[in-house]
Parts: sequence; structure tokens; C-alpha cells
Amino acid sequence: MSWSRIRTLELTMEIFEFKPTFDQFAYTFGGVKPVLRIKPGSAMKLWTEDAFNNTIKSVKDLSSEKVDLHHVNPQTGPFYVEGAEPGDTLAIHIVDLKPARGYGVSSTIPFFGGLTSTDRTATLQDPLPDTTWIYEVDSSKNTVGFESRFGEFSVELPIECMLGTIGVAPSGGEVRSSLVPERFGGNMDSPEVCAGSTIYLGVNVEGALFSVGDGHYRQGEGEACGTAVEGAMNSMIIVDLIKGAGTAWPRIENDDYYMAVGSSRPMEDSWRIGQLEMVRWFEDLYALHPMDSYQLLSQITKAPIANVVDANFSVVIMAAKNLLPETHAYSGMHSSLRERAKGLKL
Amino acid sequence: MSWSRIRTLELTMEIFEFKPTFDQFAYTFGGVKPVLRIKPGSAMKLWTEDAFNNTIKSVKDLSSEKVDLHHVNPQTGPFYVEGAEPGDTLAIHIVDLKPARGYGVSSTIPFFGGLTSTDRTATLQDPLPDTTWIYEVDSSKNTVGFESRFGEFSVELPIECMLGTIGVAPSGGEVRSSLVPERFGGNMDSPEVCAGSTIYLGVNVEGALFSVGDGHYRQGEGEACGTAVEGAMNSMIIVDLIKGAGTAWPRIENDDYYMAVGSSRPMEDSWRIGQLEMVRWFEDLYALHPMDSYQLLSQITKAPIANVVDANFSVVIMAAKNLLPETHAYSGMHSSLRERAKGLKL
Amino acid sequence: MSWSRIRTLELTMEIFEFKPTFDQFAYTFGGVKPVLRIKPGSAMKLWTEDAFNNTIKSVKDLSSEKVDLHHVNPQTGPFYVEGAEPGDTLAIHIVDLKPARGYGVSSTIPFFGGLTSTDRTATLQDPLPDTTWIYEVDSSKNTVGFESRFGEFSVELPIECMLGTIGVAPSGGEVRSSLVPERFGGNMDSPEVCAGSTIYLGVNVEGALFSVGDGHYRQGEGEACGTAVEGAMNSMIIVDLIKGAGTAWPRIENDDYYMAVGSSRPMEDSWRIGQLEMVRWFEDLYALHPMDSYQLLSQITKAPIANVVDANFSVVIMAAKNLLPETHAYSGMHSSLRERAKGLKL
Amino acid sequence: MSWSRIRTLELTMEIFEFKPTFDQFAYTFGGVKPVLRIKPGSAMKLWTEDAFNNTIKSVKDLSSEKVDLHHVNPQTGPFYVEGAEPGDTLAIHIVDLKPARGYGVSSTIPFFGGLTSTDRTATLQDPLPDTTWIYEVDSSKNTVGFESRFGEFSVELPIECMLGTIGVAPSGGEVRSSLVPERFGGNMDSPEVCAGSTIYLGVNVEGALFSVGDGHYRQGEGEACGTAVEGAMNSMIIVDLIKGAGTAWPRIENDDYYMAVGSSRPMEDSWRIGQLEMVRWFEDLYALHPMDSYQLLSQITKAPIANVVDANFSVVIMAAKNLLPETHAYSGMHSSLRERAKGLKL
Repeated sequence: MSWSRIRTLELTMEIFEFKPTFDQFAYTFGGVKPVLRIKPGSAMKLWTEDAFNNTIKSVKDLSSEKVDLHHVNPQTGPFYVEGAEPGDTLAIHIVDLKPARGYGVSSTIPFFGGLTSTDRTATLQDPLPDTTWIYEVDSSKNTVGFESRFGEFSVELPIECMLGTIGVAPSGGEVRSSLVPERFGGNMDSPEVCAGSTIYLGVNVEGALFSVGDGHYRQGEGEACGTAVEGAMNSMIIVDLIKGAGTAWPRIENDDYYMAVGSSRPMEDSWRIGQLEMVRWFEDLYALHPMDSYQLLSQITKAPIANVVDANFSVVIMAAKNLLPETHAYSGMHSSLRERAKGLKL
Repeated sequence: MSWSRIRTLELTMEIFEFKPTFDQFAYTFGGVKPVLRIKPGSAMKLWTEDAFNNTIKSVKDLSSEKVDLHHVNPQTGPFYVEGAEPGDTLAIHIVDLKPARGYGVSSTIPFFGGLTSTDRTATLQDPLPDTTWIYEVDSSKNTVGFESRFGEFSVELPIECMLGTIGVAPSGGEVRSSLVPERFGGNMDSPEVCAGSTIYLGVNVEGALFSVGDGHYRQGEGEACGTAVEGAMNSMIIVDLIKGAGTAWPRIENDDYYMAVGSSRPMEDSWRIGQLEMVRWFEDLYALHPMDSYQLLSQITKAPIANVVDANFSVVIMAAKNLLPETHAYSGMHSSLRERAKGLKL
Repeated sequence: MSWSRIRTLELTMEIFEFKPTFDQFAYTFGGVKPVLRIKPGSAMKLWTEDAFNNTIKSVKDLSSEKVDLHHVNPQTGPFYVEGAEPGDTLAIHIVDLKPARGYGVSSTIPFFGGLTSTDRTATLQDPLPDTTWIYEVDSSKNTVGFESRFGEFSVELPIECMLGTIGVAPSGGEVRSSLVPERFGGNMDSPEVCAGSTIYLGVNVEGALFSVGDGHYRQGEGEACGTAVEGAMNSMIIVDLIKGAGTAWPRIENDDYYMAVGSSRPMEDSWRIGQLEMVRWFEDLYALHPMDSYQLLSQITKAPIANVVDANFSVVIMAAKNLLPETHAYSGMHSSLRERAKGLKL
Repeated sequence: MSWSRIRTLELTMEIFEFKPTFDQFAYTFGGVKPVLRIKPGSAMKLWTEDAFNNTIKSVKDLSSEKVDLHHVNPQTGPFYVEGAEPGDTLAIHIVDLKPARGYGVSSTIPFFGGLTSTDRTATLQDPLPDTTWIYEVDSSKNTVGFESRFGEFSVELPIECMLGTIGVAPSGGEVRSSLVPERFGGNMDSPEVCAGSTIYLGVNVEGALFSVGDGHYRQGEGEACGTAVEGAMNSMIIVDLIKGAGTAWPRIENDDYYMAVGSSRPMEDSWRIGQLEMVRWFEDLYALHPMDSYQLLSQITKAPIANVVDANFSVVIMAAKNLLPETHAYSGMHSSLRERAKGLKL
């Protein structure tokens, strides 16, 4: 283990730095011992490996040949948050995300993805060709480069970093693969899990045991082919704890939106879960009757799909703050974290 | 019938004005004789009744008592477009939309909506309370007012007009209720069907026989409770025809995005349809191999849900033009329509 | 038109015989004028063409080359039942079904079927090979012969005739393809639509306008590959009318079971519809409270899948009569029809 | 722990008897240490507690008050099978099942079941009334008695014992609640898991670590209300091991049928999984090409729903042996187990 308490801010925030070695990765939410204990309010500088576990480095590396399916979506963590107990809510603020490698990778893994049959939507058809795309990072322009594999087309795309996975240990003693999004967060693959966002996750076990991974240099909504521009990532986060405020499904807050994420199958159930979670949140935020929340949200929510390729499909429900009276979720936790984040950088 | 050819622009665009009487409404796509024949390139000023057929005028009017379910989503049209044949694509550009009434209406119709059991997702539970909300239009501020029915909360929301239904006659001799979104367009309930958008619909029958209706003064993505801020609408549109260019599923183009709309159940199938339609479009636009389209779109598409309450659920796939090399869909039809729209107003 | 009133039983039952010519087929439920008017209580001897419209006659005939998708599932009918009005229930008793051709046909139509991607569950994969199987009828053994197309395997299977489609005109002025199962019956593809069964269908339009077609010499539950052993069929049916007894979704009764058929997507919704319809029926049959019906049915229903390949998926809910106190659905309609059927044969 | 090696048959079969104490129950598949190690070929007499963990004993006991949701579906096991390794297949033959209590229990748990909204199919509606039904066992008639809770209706139903859960530890280090059916078996709630059946489960971890529970005195297909006639059960099983013969999804064999069970959401995916698994099995059994298997199975499979209420929905695909040439799955394992079962009784 190679972590170090690197410095202390004026507000006495502890900052931990952690870069796991290969044998320190976790591949599940739950079922793994914590690699580190931190206090609520700590900042962390974390390094995460890419979803393929660094097995794909050129277009010649095919997922079917290189990728060990028991070692995908390696997680950095889990981390034990002192004082966290079932019934609390963990707040993880993402201060900054930066590519930690000079290229990103995407691949059409056989029988995995949105426009192919899968192990669930099972058919007798042949798989799509196993193909790899390498996206070179141009740090000066802050872009990644798409290069056609079956033609001459190329285009530069802006880097928009996000974390595919962020989650805590599940309830009921379950242990879930890091490929799964669920109540506990996990592999939601939402572009909203990016710098400036605070992710709220209900705590199921003592210490919460959260982990992060699956960095994406950019991703479209849906993560259509099954993989984003996957890459190793440096993350700066602040972790805090809200005692006694349960959160049934993951919620996200940034300066512009309140959000809730539902993850299930079929996808209409993901939407239902997210929309209902937002109705519940509006009951808290504005003391609205559920029927009034239902009505008001019907006219204002955005509902982007996050992923339609993982073990559960994820949908994000978003309510714009600028349409609503000002209020303070979780006693202003997000604003507080934004404030505390100001002195921090990668 | 009360239409009139009101004026002729310099570019000799014919402008038809049509406000149907009650007995002129259509309630299906297909199966209805055209109310008017127009030439491609015509502009139309159309008036549409609200989805409830003007039966709900105050919070005391309940949908279960007032609404005749055989007379909802009244359509203005259908219109016969001269020269339109199966295999062509109809292009309908929405120049402008404006509320035609001083209030909008929303209602939680029993066993209809996203957070209730329905005739399909059938359960033994009681329905949610049948409740009506009236949204007063403030033209000076361009807002509608949400007023809580179970408390004191109120908030002004910006008007963002859209058409819930826009569609042509189906193929195969089918006739579908105006509550249905499908290949032929119809009740997609997408906020992207708004001023500035060009909607492309594959023609299935001679004359195309398109109609519009179900105006919304605003709507969240998903149309969660089943109804938007429903209101009578004035629309200015231009209708044009693209010969010999079939379009399998509805496409939309505005200045910023290429879009495709899939409508089916479960919702992951709606997504699949839309995403595949966009792959096909990218093959046309950029001569990309399908695998390259699949990959590129995976990293750039937005995927908002349009509705999760209608006979089919609709998902919009959006590709931002500013991320892509410039190109001209359908030989620049959208740009041409934008140009032609300049002299028109409601 | 070539029908003839062939004979009169003692109980003065009229028997109509009808074999449509090619241009008399219907391809939709609704939207077609009746080919014949009959009185309730009439018997009918009907001939139906196979689902492929007799375009496939040998293993060399491929569906992608021969089948006109606008002329599949040709319907014999529609028939106007005198006195039938919306709110009534049509009762169609199947007296007997017999193959009308010496072979049956099955085919894996590209992008149609259960273990392939489709126009809805859309993927980028290649279709499965378009393949035709011919099943020779052995009348003496009452079998059809499966012959492997990719090997040497063959096996004789018992003929178990059924009708894939049986339906009335839809409500709301809709017209639906004969490929669609829905509230109005239609392409349910249930093996329970066989000799000895009485099918109850709610009437939506004057005259009911029912039709039949899509005969199967046998079919597994699910109709996995999309087509059964398709064949022209001779059917003997009796048609009766139950005034003022609405039926929301198709119900079936035979000597052993009460059944209800739900058709929707996703398939759990088909199940929900069928199970709820059966709860409603048990309220009628046994004056049971819905919660008691729900409970009792939970312990006794069979729930076979009918089809998982059509425009909607169909699930049959079956309650065994031998587990239940004797009762008489629709005033004993099924028993009466069984009695009346005794003198009839093909 | 209270097991005992009770006797040895002529064929030197070891018979273990195991009745867990309350603190010996497992509530997950995986993640629990084995309670016993057995050799392949062993017989076991097992006692299982009911799904409610014996908390509901009269109609006054309501699930919402009595049931601890972390202690439902208590499992007897897990058992370590010596020599079992990933890539092997475990064969569990159910010799006999008998009620171990004088009554069974069923309950409509709030927001759980098929005709109610749930935590996934989330709505704003009130739950159905939490109601308990007690089914008295009549051993002489071999019946359980349904007693209406909202009226006077009662009926005796034949006991048809089955095990709701039978499963091994999952792959990939996952630990799943005993409420989950999946690749590893688990809470499939299939009436086919009954006396006379052999259940084949792919081994994922050393020792396989199988467990059983959730005995039902009878259950309809679908387990509509979420609970069967739940009761403590005595089971006699024989456990054997097939080396080097992987089984992707659970298979079942009895004297009459080959079966495969798919469990996923939406339910069409469960069907797809089961149907494809059966295609694969037919490739083994009859050396059939997948397209021929697909075709043949399309005409012969039965496809009953097992459950539409659990974390995944389960569908059973059944192929009747009497329609097929004789063959011997897994080298005749089922016949061998039937033979060995002859001397055993509860």
C-alpha cells in the first residue's frame, strides 16, 4: 500500500493520496476489506486504472484476446469512512478529474453493448467484430482523437472526464461485481459523475466502504457500444458524511441540478425509480405533497439515459435549480463542499 | 372548413391557414380523409386544440368525469402533400409555436402516466387521485404558473412550446390512435419538436397525410405524469418533400443537433431503434462504416427520454453538430427551410 | 365470393362454408368490409391460407425472396355478426381443425423471431440464415415430419392444429395488421386456440367483424423462431353472441380450463394483463374479492407463453376447472357450444 | 450443527441428515462458509424453514409487522461437494419432498408481488392491503385448504411440493440474496423443482456450495402474489457431480422433459436465455446444428413462466422426451439417480 497523508489545508482537511498496486484492486462492491480508513471531511487524490485493466494498448489488442473478464472495472478502494453507519448518507464531491494516461481506449466486446445481442438479450447471431479504437489525448487542446477503423474519417472530441463507477457496499450482505449499477451506486456510467458534482449514496454497512473506478475521458449518454473512451484517471474528491439522512437511490447535486439515478431493467423501471426518488427528494426540499411533486417534476425534469449496456440500465432524472426556489439539500452540503474544494487541485 | 390562402412571399411560398371546427378533428393517423391538399414548399398556419379537447377548464374539472377517451389528442389535419409517395421523406419545419389560450392544463388521469399502474402495467392497486392543475399563461413574462393543489407552493416556469404529436399515415393500411408514437411519428411527446426543428418522416401512403396536435406550453422529459402543460396552440410550419429518400424512423434536425426518435416497448428497444437509426444516418452523412458510426456515436450522443407514458415509449438520440465536420443532411433541407422561414411569423 | 349455406341441423343451425379467393383475403383487423353476414348461433366451415400466403413450397423458397410482407397472415373474413354491438362478447367455438394441405412450412425470416435481433430489438448484427423447413403431413399417422436442413436428423411430430389468429375489429377506429395480438385478439399464436376451445372476444364495433387465419399444424409455446408449422387449414367453428357482457381482454374456455390472454411488451406486462383479467373473471365466476382471487390464482394458475415474437408478446393464464367448484361462465355458453358442436364435422 | 450420517445403502450411499438451527441459516448464495462437506453421490435428508422464517403463524400475523426482510428465504446449507470445481456441473436429484409443518402460509407483502407496483416498477400508489392466508394441511387427503379472507369461499387444493430456491455460489466473487434467481439457480420458484427432478447447476467455486430452501406446498406458475403456500419442508435429495461438463444456466431433467431455466428482466430476456440454453443442450444431445435446434424446438417446447415477482423473472423451457429420439444427457445421470433413489424415502 502506498498512500500518504500529503498535506493539511487551513481548514485542517486531511488529504490522502492513494494509487493502488495491481493486487490492491477490488472487483466488487462489498466483500473486500478496506484499503484505508478516512475521517469524514477528508480529501483524497486517487488514481484509477482503466476498465480494461490496461490490457488494451493498441488497435491490435482485441478485448476477446486480452481482457480477463474477472478483472475488469478495477476499483480503487474500498475506503472505510469513520462513523458511517447504515441509515447515513455518504457525500462524495468530485473536485477534479484528469486523464492519467496519454490515450483512451474503446472496444466492441463480443456480445456486450447496446446494439448487439448479449448474454441476456440472447440470440443465435454472430457477434459484431471485436474491434479496438485508440483515442490519443491532446493535452494542449484538451481533446481525444477518434480515428475510424474501417475508413479514413477522424475527428477531435473535447475531453469531458467522468467516473463510470462510484459506489458503496450493498445491503443485505450482497457482493456485486463492479460491472453492476444499483441502489448502492456502482457502474452507473453517468456523465454527471464529473468534476463539480456531489454524489449522495445511502450507507449500508459500517464504514460505507466506497470505491471509484472506470474513468472515462468522454462518453455519450447510453454508452452505446458498451465502452466509453476508457482511461486511467486522477481524481480529487472530498468525502463527507451526513448522519441520519438515508438516501434510497443515488442522488447527485451540482450547481445547476438536483439529480437521482435509477438502475434496473427494463429501462422504464430505471426511469420510474429515478423519477420517484426525485419526488421523494422534492418532498424533503420543498415540503411538497407527492402529487404536487409528481406534477411539477413532470413539467421540468430532464431524463437522460446514462447506460443501456450494463447489468442494469441507468437513467438520470434532473431538476434544474434555476427553475426552482432556492433551497439547501442536506443542509447545504453541496455548497459547503464546493467551498472546501476551492483550495484543492490535482 | 375555414382555410384561406393568406399571402404569397417573394419566393412564392403559399401559406395556408387552417383552424378546424370540432367535427373536423382527426383522432387517428391514417384512416381519415385529408382536409386540405398542399404543394411541397407550402407554409401553414395551424391551430390545434389541446389534448383534452378543451374539456378541462378549471381545477374542478376532473379528467375521469370530463374527458371522452375517444376524443383526446385531436389532430389538425390530415393534409395531403402533392407528389408525396411511399419511399419519399416529408420534411416539416416548425417556424414558430405560440399558446393560443390563456392557460394550460395538466391532469393525472386514473391509470395513465409514469408513476402509476396502467392498462398495460396492470396492478390491483387503486388509482392515484384524479387531479387537475391549471397553469395560467403570463404572456409578458412568457411563463406558465404552477400552483400546488395540496399545499401553498407556486412557481413561474418559462414557456417552451412544443407539439406532442406530428405524424403521417402508417404503412400497411394500419390506422393508429393519435395517442400512439411509432415509425410514422405520432405521439412522440418530444420537447425537440419545437420551433427551429425540422422533422423528417418517411412517407407511407400517397400524399403522406400528415397531421399535428397535442400542443404543450412546456413539458419535462418523460412527460412523467402523462400530461404536459396542455394547451391550444398556433403553429407556423413549412412543409417540404424529399423525393426518393426514405427515412425508416422519425429524424429531427435543428441548428445544433441531428436526432432520431425510437418508439417502442420496453424502453431499451426505443433506445436501440433510435441509436441504430442514427448509425444509419451517419453512414449517409459521413460515409462511415456502421462499426465506426457505432463507436463514434457511443462517445457523443445525448439520449434524452421523450415519453415513458404513451402506447410506446420514445427516446431521442442526439448528435451535436459542433462536434462533427460540417455536412448537409438531405442536401441541406434544414438550412433551406431555416432560410425560407425568415419572413414568416405567427 | 364462394360461400354456400350447406345444411341445417335439427336445432336449425345455419352452416356457412367460405373459402376466400386470393383477392378476398384481409390483412388487417378492422378497416375491411365484411365478406359475409351471419346470425349468432351459426356454424361456419372456413378455409384459411397459410401465413406465407402459399409463397413457400419447398426448402428452396426463401422467405426473403418470396414473401410479400404486406400479404402475410391472410385472414378469412371479416364476418359481420348480426346484433353484435360494442359492450357485447363474441363467443367463437372451435369444433374442429384439419390440415388443408399435404405439408406445412416454417422459416427463419431475417430479423424476425425470438432468438434474433428484430426491427424493435435492433442490433447491428447480421441476420440468421434465411432457411426454410418443409414438414410433410402423414395423415395416416397424424404427424408432420421435421427434417434437419444442416444435418441428417429427422423426427415425426404429432399434428396438433391451432389457429394463430382469431380476432375482431379494434376499438377507437384503429386498424391493426394481422401480425398484431392485442385486446381484440388477433395474432396471439396460442396453442390453446384449438379444437374444443371457446374464444371470448369483446365486441368493439357493430357486427364485431371477426376473422381467422394463420393455421398451425403444430407450434411450441413461444413460437420461438417466429413461425410455426404453417399450413392452410379447414376450420369448423360455431359463432355465438353474449349480449351485454363485456370482456376486456381475450378469454378462452375449454373443458378443463378458464383462460385469459394478455398481449403487450415487455412480456411481464402481458402476464400482468392476463393475470388481472383472470382475477376479474374470478370475481364474476365465484363472487370472490379481488384480493382473494389474487391469492387463490397465485396458487393454481398455469402461465404458458404463447408467443414472444409478434408485435406484442402473448401470455396465457390458465385456471384448472378440476381444482375449483363447478360454475358456469357466461351462463354456460361453452357447455352449450360443446353440445351444439356434436353433430358437426369437417 | 446437528447432522448425522444415518445409514448406508447397499450401494454404499452415504446419507446425511441436516436440520439447521436458527443461527445456521444462510441468506445468500455465496459468502457463507459451508455447514457440511459431502462426497458426490451422497444422499441428504434436509429440513428447510419457510420463506418467512416462521414469523407468520396466523392470519393476524402481517408480513409488514413480523417479517424481517434480512431474514427471508433462509437457506439450508451451503454444502461443500468434494471435488467440485469451476467448469463442473452439479446434479441434485430431488427424491422426495414432504411438508414439515401442519400449515402453509401466503401473504401479500406490501410492494412485493406481480399485481402491485414494487421497488423496481415504482409508482406513487398505495400498496395493496397486507393480508395473510393460512392453508391448513390435510395429510390424509394430501391437500391444503384455501380460505377466503374477504368472504366465505373455501377450497381444498392438492399438495404439490416444490423448492423455491436451489442454487450454488455465484461466479466472480459475487454474493447474492436468497431472493435472487440467476445463472447460479437460486430463487427460481419453478414448480419443476420437485420430486423426480434432477437439477443441473454449473459450478463456480470449489465445492460448489449449494443450498436449498423456500419450500412450497403448492404454487401456481408465476407465483403471482409474490408468495406460494410457503412451508417448512423435509427434502430427500441425492447430490452428484459431473466433471468437466459446464452448464451455463440451470437445466432440469425429469422422466418426461429436458428443461432449461432463464432468469432476467424483462421477461422476454428470461425466455431468450432459456430457449438458447435449450438450443445449446440439443446441440449436445442430438448433434443438431443450432439452426435446426432452433427450428425443432420452436415446434415442441413448452414455456411456462416460473416467477414474475422475484429480483429476476424466471421462465422454464421444456422439451418433451416422448417427442424425441431417446438419448442420455450427461451420460445418463438422471436415470442413474432415479435408480439410486429407489431405496430412499423420507
